Amino acid sequence: MKEKHETAYEKLKDRLATISDLSSANGLLFWDRQTYMPEGGVAGRAEQMATLSRLAHEMFVDDGTGGLLDAVGEQDPSSEEGAMLRRARREYERATKLPSDLVAEITRTTALAEPAWVRAREEADWSLFAGHLEKILPLKREAAEHLGYEDHPYDALLDGYEPGTKKAQLEKMFEELKEGIAPLVRAVSEWEGDEEDRAAPLYGDFDEAEQEEFGKAVISAFGYDWERGRQDRSVHPFCINFGPGDVRVTTRFEEGWLAPALFGTMHETGHALYEQGINPDYARTPLGSGTSMGVHESQSRLWENLVGRSRPFWSRYYPKLQEAFPEALGRVGSEAFYRAINVLEPSPIRVEADEATYNLHILLRFELEVALLEDALSVTELPNAWNAKMEEYLGVTPKNDAEGVLQDVHWSNGLFGYFPTYTIGNVLSVQFFDEAVKAHPEIPDQIKEGRFSTLHGWLRENIYRHGSRYYPDELVEKVTGRPLDPAPYLRYLKSKFGELYGLS
Amino acid sequence: MKEKHETAYEKLKDRLATISDLSSANGLLFWDRQTYMPEGGVAGRAEQMATLSRLAHEMFVDDGTGGLLDAVGEQDPSSEEGAMLRRARREYERATKLPSDLVAEITRTTALAEPAWVRAREEADWSLFAGHLEKILPLKREAAEHLGYEDHPYDALLDGYEPGTKKAQLEKMFEELKEGIAPLVRAVSEWEGDEEDRAAPLYGDFDEAEQEEFGKAVISAFGYDWERGRQDRSVHPFCINFGPGDVRVTTRFEEGWLAPALFGTMHETGHALYEQGINPDYARTPLGSGTSMGVHESQSRLWENLVGRSRPFWSRYYPKLQEAFPEALGRVGSEAFYRAINVLEPSPIRVEADEATYNLHILLRFELEVALLEDALSVTELPNAWNAKMEEYLGVTPKNDAEGVLQDVHWSNGLFGYFPTYTIGNVLSVQFFDEAVKAHPEIPDQIKEGRFSTLHGWLRENIYRHGSRYYPDELVEKVTGRPLDPAPYLRYLKSKFGELYGLS
Repeated sequence: MKEKHETAYEKLKDRLATISDLSSANGLLFWDRQTYMPEGGVAGRAEQMATLSRLAHEMFVDDGTGGLLDAVGEQDPSSEEGAMLRRARREYERATKLPSDLVAEITRTTALAEPAWVRAREEADWSLFAGHLEKILPLKREAAEHLGYEDHPYDALLDGYEPGTKKAQLEKMFEELKEGIAPLVRAVSEWEGDEEDRAAPLYGDFDEAEQEEFGKAVISAFGYDWERGRQDRSVHPFCINFGPGDVRVTTRFEEGWLAPALFGTMHETGHALYEQGINPDYARTPLGSGTSMGVHESQSRLWENLVGRSRPFWSRYYPKLQEAFPEALGRVGSEAFYRAINVLEPSPIRVEADEATYNLHILLRFELEVALLEDALSVTELPNAWNAKMEEYLGVTPKNDAEGVLQDVHWSNGLFGYFPTYTIGNVLSVQFFDEAVKAHPEIPDQIKEGRFSTLHGWLRENIYRHGSRYYPDELVEKVTGRPLDPAPYLRYLKSKFGELYGLS
Repeated sequence: MKEKHETAYEKLKDRLATISDLSSANGLLFWDRQTYMPEGGVAGRAEQMATLSRLAHEMFVDDGTGGLLDAVGEQDPSSEEGAMLRRARREYERATKLPSDLVAEITRTTALAEPAWVRAREEADWSLFAGHLEKILPLKREAAEHLGYEDHPYDALLDGYEPGTKKAQLEKMFEELKEGIAPLVRAVSEWEGDEEDRAAPLYGDFDEAEQEEFGKAVISAFGYDWERGRQDRSVHPFCINFGPGDVRVTTRFEEGWLAPALFGTMHETGHALYEQGINPDYARTPLGSGTSMGVHESQSRLWENLVGRSRPFWSRYYPKLQEAFPEALGRVGSEAFYRAINVLEPSPIRVEADEATYNLHILLRFELEVALLEDALSVTELPNAWNAKMEEYLGVTPKNDAEGVLQDVHWSNGLFGYFPTYTIGNVLSVQFFDEAVKAHPEIPDQIKEGRFSTLHGWLRENIYRHGSRYYPDELVEKVTGRPLDPAPYLRYLKSKFGELYGLS
């Protein structure tokens, strides 16, 4: 037998690798459940996933992990080893601050709350869900107290998705966004141009196999590596990875509506390019995935919106799309198509929102969840507060709670502090894209030619390969020389939609 | 918080359920690797599978398991609880008898041996593999010593696949089979009937989608429950389950050869019907899967051979098959097709062997692996010994070691004692089938009408639902009133092939 004398650092890495393997296996259990698992597997799969989560959590919060972290000590976080230790310690401390009874109680409560939310949304009946949310809120407040914070309990929860970011920063960001977007939305809604239904070209008869082939061609050109990934179908599209060698996307196809598969595929591929681009040496370590939800979303949004809803992209790809769907699109001009994929129009539903109003949906949720956490708003008052803000920010009123306060699953899962990462992603997508174009001014012309390797290469070099080596604020500063800043994003929105709607 | 006061029995069940979940998750990692995983996932997947195996093993052999087993004590094994404890203790004792260093060494050695075997077979070069087998053998001998045995070290290894069965019983079984089969093979080979190539109808142009549809129709009729399973493609077909609600099969299709998918689908479905039929209360316990490799194989063989290669079956299904493949089979009569799927002809390759000569392939391996374990035969002598026995039992000589001693993967994986379970399966398939027909003489007529529910129901009631509640010898005795007995199987072979070849 080979003798093994492992250092504390090696032992720690082994332990974290074991935990990472459990989490990858659990990821596959999830992927399979969403894609191929037969109906009969539901109960068994729930047990398997609960067991793997529990084992991974137990092993991570075990004193053994803390002992090894202490034995190794801190190291200069500018080194890879130091960055890994810093990230491991951060996650360990967050995990161990929560009493295991509280973690179990949150798991139990949200496990009951989600199916209740499903029913409540189906029946558009807030009362079926309100009691569950009333149980979840005090648990999340308690969690925030255990996790600790300087200014506001919201910071403690937000930190779980966007390390280091604070509520105060978000307020500043949203203030700027609201000031910039509200007049744009007003101007467009007051605009009296054509009366046609701009989005009409996206509805018609779109053969699923053709949609799939077109999407594959696009994401292959983006640089998605099929030797380290695959695409399957699922009702709710997602990207998931089991290490850098296996990063998968899923897509939902609708034969009557082109948008979900077309933009969904680009969106999930943006996430996938990030994960495929991470330094493979980080596999099975805490550095081996994207650094935050917001930075992750910046990449899905960059490829979906800044590339996939741009003129340069479609000047190349629209003729190909017309070839794929001659009947539906043969007589739709490229300008009409470009307008169709960039309709700015307030709607009550977040996931159907355009690039601009999307952020007002997030602002609304952010303000409401802060108020709920502070107990400044009661669960009973929430539906009215929702509708009032919807009217104020978007000028629309949901026809019932199903398309209002009940539309999102997040709160039923206890995800308070998560929504803002969507807008952080939007904001960062433009900051990053601008930097890429500054470094390589030829990028827009290349996109016109269907060449994405300069953009992809820049993103990989500056963002992807680092995985979680830098915290999001460090990464943003390192890449753009500035902190998170909504100004470039607002300039982008005003320029794009100003031109589209002929605003002054 | 709800207080939990678990009894030792509940704690033991929880622990075994956790281990079962880990093993199911590992099963999914395997299934995915064989079906959908992209090439780039290989390295990561190997780590994940190794980690889950290790965790399941560590948790099982942990003193905690032994402590709980001792605390619960033994109970009457005729109760379900008692049977579960008996099976758990048996597996625990087998697992803990092996020193973990030896387990690790076997894992390492066979991990290197398998790719060496692949190369050796590709290049038909025994010398590339011989050194690996020389390392594996002493490790398996050592394992047998640790496991313990009364008469022969082979018993200790065989017991891992066929609990309770002994080498001496196998020798008796094989002696009877050899005496019965050898004259049959000789008679057929000396027979001078037609000179046509009987198997020709199985070769031609068989559209893959049509093959798949036909196979699905057949196994749906057998009773395969698609709500608790699915069928995918893999190079090496298999059946795998992740609990009673999710039992999957895989199939290999060849457009030029009908046999692999046709009979492979029925074979794997036989395994699947067994697993789908187990009492769902046994899920996540040691009783929740088939009781032995041999009993499992009896079910795959029963559906593949006793149903799927029978006249009654094809009197119903051949017209449907002709409809599916009018060009290839339109002018092939049903009798010619029945002869084609029942050619008795010695060949050097086990997996291509007919129902009769198959067992001589197994006998040869059984005798050689006993001799290797006893050191009565050296690894260097093995290829010649193989060829000599091949000539003696089957009258054929492999043209090289690739189609001789190197044809099977098993020994490179350290699977000594496994091969005989194939023949046990063949023998039991007829014993069980005869009992079913004795209880329900209408079964052959029902098969003629494409009705399989009486047969399936009888098997579920008498065999499937029990899972691992009874050891194989107990089950055989309970179902047939007799021990394992080759006589019915020999009668079946003589009757079937005697009629087919017009022997007296």
